[in-house]
Amino acid sequence: MWFTSDNAGPAHPAVLEAVARANEGFTPGYGGEAAMARVTARIREIFEAPEAMVHLVGTGTAANALALACLVRPWETVFCHHEAHVEVDECAAPEFFADGAKLTTLPGAHGRIEPAALSDAISARRGVENVAAGALSLTNATEAGTLYTPGAVRELTGVARAAGLPCHMDGARFANALAALGCSPADLTWRAGIDVLCLGGTKNGCLGVEAVVFFDPARGAEFERRRKRGGHLFSKHRFLAAQMEAYLEGGLWLDLAARANAAARLLAEGLAGIAGARLLHPCEANAVFVALPRARLRAAEAKGARFYLWDPRDTLDGPDEDPVAARFVCDWSKTGAEVAALLAALG
Amino acid sequence: MWFTSDNAGPAHPAVLEAVARANEGFTPGYGGEAAMARVTARIREIFEAPEAMVHLVGTGTAANALALACLVRPWETVFCHHEAHVEVDECAAPEFFADGAKLTTLPGAHGRIEPAALSDAISARRGVENVAAGALSLTNATEAGTLYTPGAVRELTGVARAAGLPCHMDGARFANALAALGCSPADLTWRAGIDVLCLGGTKNGCLGVEAVVFFDPARGAEFERRRKRGGHLFSKHRFLAAQMEAYLEGGLWLDLAARANAAARLLAEGLAGIAGARLLHPCEANAVFVALPRARLRAAEAKGARFYLWDPRDTLDGPDEDPVAARFVCDWSKTGAEVAALLAALG
Amino acid sequence: MWFTSDNAGPAHPAVLEAVARANEGFTPGYGGEAAMARVTARIREIFEAPEAMVHLVGTGTAANALALACLVRPWETVFCHHEAHVEVDECAAPEFFADGAKLTTLPGAHGRIEPAALSDAISARRGVENVAAGALSLTNATEAGTLYTPGAVRELTGVARAAGLPCHMDGARFANALAALGCSPADLTWRAGIDVLCLGGTKNGCLGVEAVVFFDPARGAEFERRRKRGGHLFSKHRFLAAQMEAYLEGGLWLDLAARANAAARLLAEGLAGIAGARLLHPCEANAVFVALPRARLRAAEAKGARFYLWDPRDTLDGPDEDPVAARFVCDWSKTGAEVAALLAALG
Amino acid sequence: MWFTSDNAGPAHPAVLEAVARANEGFTPGYGGEAAMARVTARIREIFEAPEAMVHLVGTGTAANALALACLVRPWETVFCHHEAHVEVDECAAPEFFADGAKLTTLPGAHGRIEPAALSDAISARRGVENVAAGALSLTNATEAGTLYTPGAVRELTGVARAAGLPCHMDGARFANALAALGCSPADLTWRAGIDVLCLGGTKNGCLGVEAVVFFDPARGAEFERRRKRGGHLFSKHRFLAAQMEAYLEGGLWLDLAARANAAARLLAEGLAGIAGARLLHPCEANAVFVALPRARLRAAEAKGARFYLWDPRDTLDGPDEDPVAARFVCDWSKTGAEVAALLAALG
Repeated sequence: MWFTSDNAGPAHPAVLEAVARANEGFTPGYGGEAAMARVTARIREIFEAPEAMVHLVGTGTAANALALACLVRPWETVFCHHEAHVEVDECAAPEFFADGAKLTTLPGAHGRIEPAALSDAISARRGVENVAAGALSLTNATEAGTLYTPGAVRELTGVARAAGLPCHMDGARFANALAALGCSPADLTWRAGIDVLCLGGTKNGCLGVEAVVFFDPARGAEFERRRKRGGHLFSKHRFLAAQMEAYLEGGLWLDLAARANAAARLLAEGLAGIAGARLLHPCEANAVFVALPRARLRAAEAKGARFYLWDPRDTLDGPDEDPVAARFVCDWSKTGAEVAALLAALG
Repeated sequence: MWFTSDNAGPAHPAVLEAVARANEGFTPGYGGEAAMARVTARIREIFEAPEAMVHLVGTGTAANALALACLVRPWETVFCHHEAHVEVDECAAPEFFADGAKLTTLPGAHGRIEPAALSDAISARRGVENVAAGALSLTNATEAGTLYTPGAVRELTGVARAAGLPCHMDGARFANALAALGCSPADLTWRAGIDVLCLGGTKNGCLGVEAVVFFDPARGAEFERRRKRGGHLFSKHRFLAAQMEAYLEGGLWLDLAARANAAARLLAEGLAGIAGARLLHPCEANAVFVALPRARLRAAEAKGARFYLWDPRDTLDGPDEDPVAARFVCDWSKTGAEVAALLAALG
Repeated sequence: MWFTSDNAGPAHPAVLEAVARANEGFTPGYGGEAAMARVTARIREIFEAPEAMVHLVGTGTAANALALACLVRPWETVFCHHEAHVEVDECAAPEFFADGAKLTTLPGAHGRIEPAALSDAISARRGVENVAAGALSLTNATEAGTLYTPGAVRELTGVARAAGLPCHMDGARFANALAALGCSPADLTWRAGIDVLCLGGTKNGCLGVEAVVFFDPARGAEFERRRKRGGHLFSKHRFLAAQMEAYLEGGLWLDLAARANAAARLLAEGLAGIAGARLLHPCEANAVFVALPRARLRAAEAKGARFYLWDPRDTLDGPDEDPVAARFVCDWSKTGAEVAALLAALG
Repeated sequence: MWFTSDNAGPAHPAVLEAVARANEGFTPGYGGEAAMARVTARIREIFEAPEAMVHLVGTGTAANALALACLVRPWETVFCHHEAHVEVDECAAPEFFADGAKLTTLPGAHGRIEPAALSDAISARRGVENVAAGALSLTNATEAGTLYTPGAVRELTGVARAAGLPCHMDGARFANALAALGCSPADLTWRAGIDVLCLGGTKNGCLGVEAVVFFDPARGAEFERRRKRGGHLFSKHRFLAAQMEAYLEGGLWLDLAARANAAARLLAEGLAGIAGARLLHPCEANAVFVALPRARLRAAEAKGARFYLWDPRDTLDGPDEDPVAARFVCDWSKTGAEVAALLAALG
């Protein structure tokens, strides 16, 4: 009953098999292998973006930090939600890779930035003594397990682009968003104003690979140098390419995301039947945020359930009836039986 | 009628004369001149801190950024008020000098951080993926022209120190705070938990000099290297030392600050008699923040008054009666006659 | 006939199988998985270093840059050979991770720093205006395919340590050095004065994993934060741990290195029989540097041989008889038959 | 008898008087004062460069580091002489301001880079794993007190520009070079291929001011932001502008440099008559590098002479007759009588 994170589970067998198949003989490395050319072609096709520049790295933090560093100068700031991964979970990697640039955080219910807040923050910039507006970063699916629709993305990038700002999408769970929304990859990205997408694989069935997709290759001109100086250029790059190729093959990525989303929906629906449970955010992708009486969480943990308390200051020690916020994340491998077992443990 | 900033006015003649006197013959530079030893001794005496380490630089941004860089590691964050100079007016210099460290901004009325907000922000830190709590930075007098009393400083540093955080004071207007509070320099700094003070000279009668005072010299061990690699070590350092020596001589610094404070108070009191004027912050030091009908500001500007609209999005074009927030800052040279002239222009 | 690099070949099947086996169910990530504890224990045992701190990353550049960043401050310099990987092949990653620290390169025949050159460079440091001496970095096996014996390491670290400098070993090919020298891992590292070893796996049979071993864990106190902010902390870290565990299991690492070394030796011996061939460095590990008449290299390439011309300005176009320097590297999978084929193609 | 450095002496009275005159009333700061517009106009006129962008900072290290940061990206390297100030005397400031870029040092007699060495270093660059060639930095007058003629500058910038590299001139002693060469400022800079000049004032009669002159303003587009985030934008900027204006007024800068050069020449000629003295570099500007028997240096020091031993490892303790390298620098205030006194003390 592991629901801590979608990166605590296994890789999909098809991905693993592709890695094994890639282990044949000698190849050029560093992205020069034939498989990488196929990955680029496939992503261009999927995104209807024949010019897109595609690079692979091993972690989501690397993907985001390198992508943002290509968008902003060190005296600029990236606008993001105050709960964004780049702000909260990357130990100042964006600031590091962007040589000291800032993040400016914006409020917004359910993990989503509101256009007015963005507009306000951009217009509040002053002169040379103030950092300049640099870029917009959206996370989709969000850290709250909610979604931006293509229209919502477009509205926000519209505000940013009117001020000349490029737009980044942290898509660590992009597949979950896409599977839930049912729109085309292009509609949720470049057609909605996104310049660079970090397309996650790790949380959705890969061992460790993320694609950075610059829809306008000029935006990514610095990426290769930045990746190398960041220590993120793999010599045996074929093993990254193999993962990504298998992940995209036959729509596997969307199938896996749909499974994860379905498990989360099942869980959210089941929680409706548990006394004292209150969903904190709509369950739109593969995560469920719920306030539950502490005693229920404690009991579930005793029965083997694994999850996070969302506020790092909360603990399972304390009054039984106090509501405590917990996060349950479903990965692609999560079954209905496991969800049922969790609900039983909580209920 | 210049009220834009306390750095728009002249240096005090005594400071200028000291610079001229320092221009005699040959001396070692880089802080090795005899005058610097006297400056250090004088600051130690004033602050009752016989071990304090003292360095001089030419700008307040350099002072703050170098001081903070000595306190935090690149994966840590500095807690400061959301209107703090280090956040708003230094173009990411703290982030640059601290090699990518972050600032985390806190709300608080009238430019002052509230202890509960600080406590909350510190305790919300998570694990290795989150930036660590690094330091507290207070500005005194604040950006809103208000003060922290020794007790208020102590309360905030108490929260910080309980979490192991060192404490910085941006004292670009420290003299104004001290002159207004009437307490001892030690009471407002190290006795109240401050580890390093940036003691401003530029805004209060100098040409361009700020002292960085580490009350525990071990905290400042890196300062000299950081200053040199930041390009802030002056070869003809004697001209910085001469300014600071004259500034402190005979309490000149406090006299000048008291004059500036008195002018601001006069202005604040005068504004009480102007229809439609509303003070936005208590006037506790040398700045007055006031909302005035736009027509009054427009008229004053036409008569030669110089000041800033506080919100960069405001302009003097617009409905006459709308209240617009303006900042008026008094420097040491401001006379009662000038204040009266301004009031007349506004009234 | 691929002899371009030891990272152009496949991973060893045992390593790949371990990765597959690791793909079972849910585990904590980020190094918290059980396998990582086993890797640490095994490395401590192998190196007779029960206190050693061990971390894994995905690339050699990340390992070196992160390790060096833990040893030096931004105003210090790392002494290294002028052909060192950290200087020539990492696109300023050490400078990036160490926040602007320098590398100072030293000459030395056959890829080895000479103690007198190191001593001279250290003693030439001046005052605060000069960067300070920061650390020593040795590569073993060297970029020239030669070795430092334990005695040679000791002599160099002795010079460094007398000046208070910590010592780093880039061991991307440490296994090759160890297999060739036949000494104990401890003798070639901490007993010879090394503080931190980057123990390569990628070039010697892994998919992509390097261990950073701090013999004094205090030296590595910053590593975890630096790794995370560098984007080098893998969520599904189990796949790194699995590789390293299999790599060390039963001495596989040394067996593979010995195979590679033997192939290189065979090649070097065979070259002795080829007219016009001249070894540029003694062949002591798994690489052969040889000057050959251009026509021979051209012919070999035409027959399918893959290798690097060592000087980026050389080409295979030009007078037939001119000697051109080429590098041939053997990985663990290289067979005698392949070496013979290469010799035939060249001869 | 101070000959340690040209920054150990006083400012010229005319410069000091200009500072005093500037201390009148209120002005915009941050370079917005009227005097700065006059400085820009004057420098454009002197350099026959009507489009030049001019900025002022307080130290030579700031000028060089900020200028270079505008020319190179963090994965590029600056080619400079191995004794260049940017390499030896700035505590890694260029690396800091350029966010981790490198310097690649080149050999060359008498402080001058040789075109072949530059050409060789540029062409030795490899692929993405190597840092890219970024810029050329020349120092004129050099650290060895010698000069590059316009022709010599042109030859070196020709090599650089053929490879697409911009060219920087560290002109901390540019006035000394110009006064000695008798050519036009334009001939020694932009007409000879220089993109940005750091024009020193501090060593030649100012208190602390350097101009950074971008002949193509597009090259300097980032300068203002970089200066602010470096803490080098002075609020009371009028005092920098006043210095520079007085320094250039009526050719004062060249008069002062000519005086310093003449004193150095006198010294060099006088040394020819001292037994055991051997000039180490031709005396072409305002510094004399000479090897003298240690006893002579010791005796001079005892009589009050102040100078530097060039090798930081040398001391005045040791065998009397051993030749020891010393540097004597003449500033604008140095008189023939002082030079004669030094010669007497040495002779």
